[in-house]
Amino acid sequence: MSRVGGIEAGGTKFVCAVGTHPDDLDVAEFPTTTPDETIHRTVEFFKQRPPVSAIGIGSFGPIDPNPGSATYGYITATPKLAWRNFDFAGAIRHALGVSVAFDTDVNTAALGESRWGAAQGLDTFLYMTVGTGIGGGSLVNGQLMHGLTHPEMGHIWVPHDWEKDPFKGCCPYHGDCLEGLANGSSFRARWGQPGESLPDDHPAWELEAHYLGYGLTNLICTLSPQKVVIGGGVMRRAQLYPMIQAKVAALLNGYAQVPEIVPPRLGARAGVSGAIALALSL
Amino acid sequence: MSRVGGIEAGGTKFVCAVGTHPDDLDVAEFPTTTPDETIHRTVEFFKQRPPVSAIGIGSFGPIDPNPGSATYGYITATPKLAWRNFDFAGAIRHALGVSVAFDTDVNTAALGESRWGAAQGLDTFLYMTVGTGIGGGSLVNGQLMHGLTHPEMGHIWVPHDWEKDPFKGCCPYHGDCLEGLANGSSFRARWGQPGESLPDDHPAWELEAHYLGYGLTNLICTLSPQKVVIGGGVMRRAQLYPMIQAKVAALLNGYAQVPEIVPPRLGARAGVSGAIALALSL
Repeated sequence: MSRVGGIEAGGTKFVCAVGTHPDDLDVAEFPTTTPDETIHRTVEFFKQRPPVSAIGIGSFGPIDPNPGSATYGYITATPKLAWRNFDFAGAIRHALGVSVAFDTDVNTAALGESRWGAAQGLDTFLYMTVGTGIGGGSLVNGQLMHGLTHPEMGHIWVPHDWEKDPFKGCCPYHGDCLEGLANGSSFRARWGQPGESLPDDHPAWELEAHYLGYGLTNLICTLSPQKVVIGGGVMRRAQLYPMIQAKVAALLNGYAQVPEIVPPRLGARAGVSGAIALALSL
Repeated sequence: MSRVGGIEAGGTKFVCAVGTHPDDLDVAEFPTTTPDETIHRTVEFFKQRPPVSAIGIGSFGPIDPNPGSATYGYITATPKLAWRNFDFAGAIRHALGVSVAFDTDVNTAALGESRWGAAQGLDTFLYMTVGTGIGGGSLVNGQLMHGLTHPEMGHIWVPHDWEKDPFKGCCPYHGDCLEGLANGSSFRARWGQPGESLPDDHPAWELEAHYLGYGLTNLICTLSPQKVVIGGGVMRRAQLYPMIQAKVAALLNGYAQVPEIVPPRLGARAGVSGAIALALSL
């Protein structure tokens, strides 16, 4: 199998890799700064290695993933102003003279979990990440989802009991959407300290499972996934899995089947492995 | 093109048709009573007409739409007890000796709108109906969505401000899910009279657009449809379209593109036309 390149372009760091499989990757990572500097480091990474036939990019967004569009391969309305309207796929393609496949970070991670991870053999499943942001990617009938643009599953709305939880949410666009109520930053904003420092019996975890349970129930009712794979920094607190599973079952209340909710199998290499899978799909 | 059969199996009536296109259908309809009586009338309808090569069924649900399953073609956990665990596709196949395609009523209607209606040429769009129930079907990458079972988009949860709207919702499974807050029955339960009898300036319509706006925003963030086609009895109140469009735009708040939200083009024949399209897809 030919060696390809992968770029996991996150809002805080880039992970670049060359290889054919999650287990044989030559990887480097560095912080996301300006487009000029970050793309320069990325291009240098690939130039210092034997040429690859293609590069897959899983990017923070929003992005334009539509190959028929004039701005295909661009990062679009991101709050990171230096990156807004940046031709990411074009910059890599021109600098390295390779084919480039471009998608969202979460779609890309979903593809990796589908090829090598917890969703092998499934054609319809949901991948979700709960970290600095909340995002979801899904395979439906074996294909990644795009449409008018691409899903923004973290920004769905869920019931918010203002009396029990007066926190107004921390999404700069929507306030108390799911991301605003349940992302990694919400812990410090609501409880005065980051999630990592809160004990297992702190009420923060019950509330987190409550909101993620509502969010997943909405996504399950919409997509009917065969399985839910959910990862990201917040989900390192493993007690959340059974709590969320129970919450989803209670909310669905026997009306629809409850899919299994599991961690990603590719761990910290999920994103960049997905980018490798994306390049292999070209 | 060969003549095929279509069955729109609703909770209150069945619509049967034979033809090749929405404009050439030979149609009959009758009330949904017991499975024995209703299937008998359906079979008689087809026996009295020239044989067809295939029959498509768009059924109320939940159903089992998975051809690999032992209960493929069954209605499953419906609150209509006489129909629970009824082998609908099998009954039609055995009585008439034809190929049968089986899907949800909303997936089937989506297919009809895709082939002949408001969604022609689109490969990713959302069809929604707001009537006695609320349901959604979607084409993603040109294919209908199935997974663990099938979507149940009416049963997603949306923010419910109990102070402004103390109505507890009328979904027998979930109380104040979207269907419980915004289906046709919610008008009589909340306002003491059916929606049809409420004037255009009644606050019921603002509230209806509010909930449908939240629901559609969630579905749009999850599916990224190129267009939203929304019909059903409640949507006959045409003022709802611009109200919902404005609500969705306000909720997305510039973060994601707002798709056009339009009525179905096939009107009262949407369901059975979709069933014809389903049969033609065999």
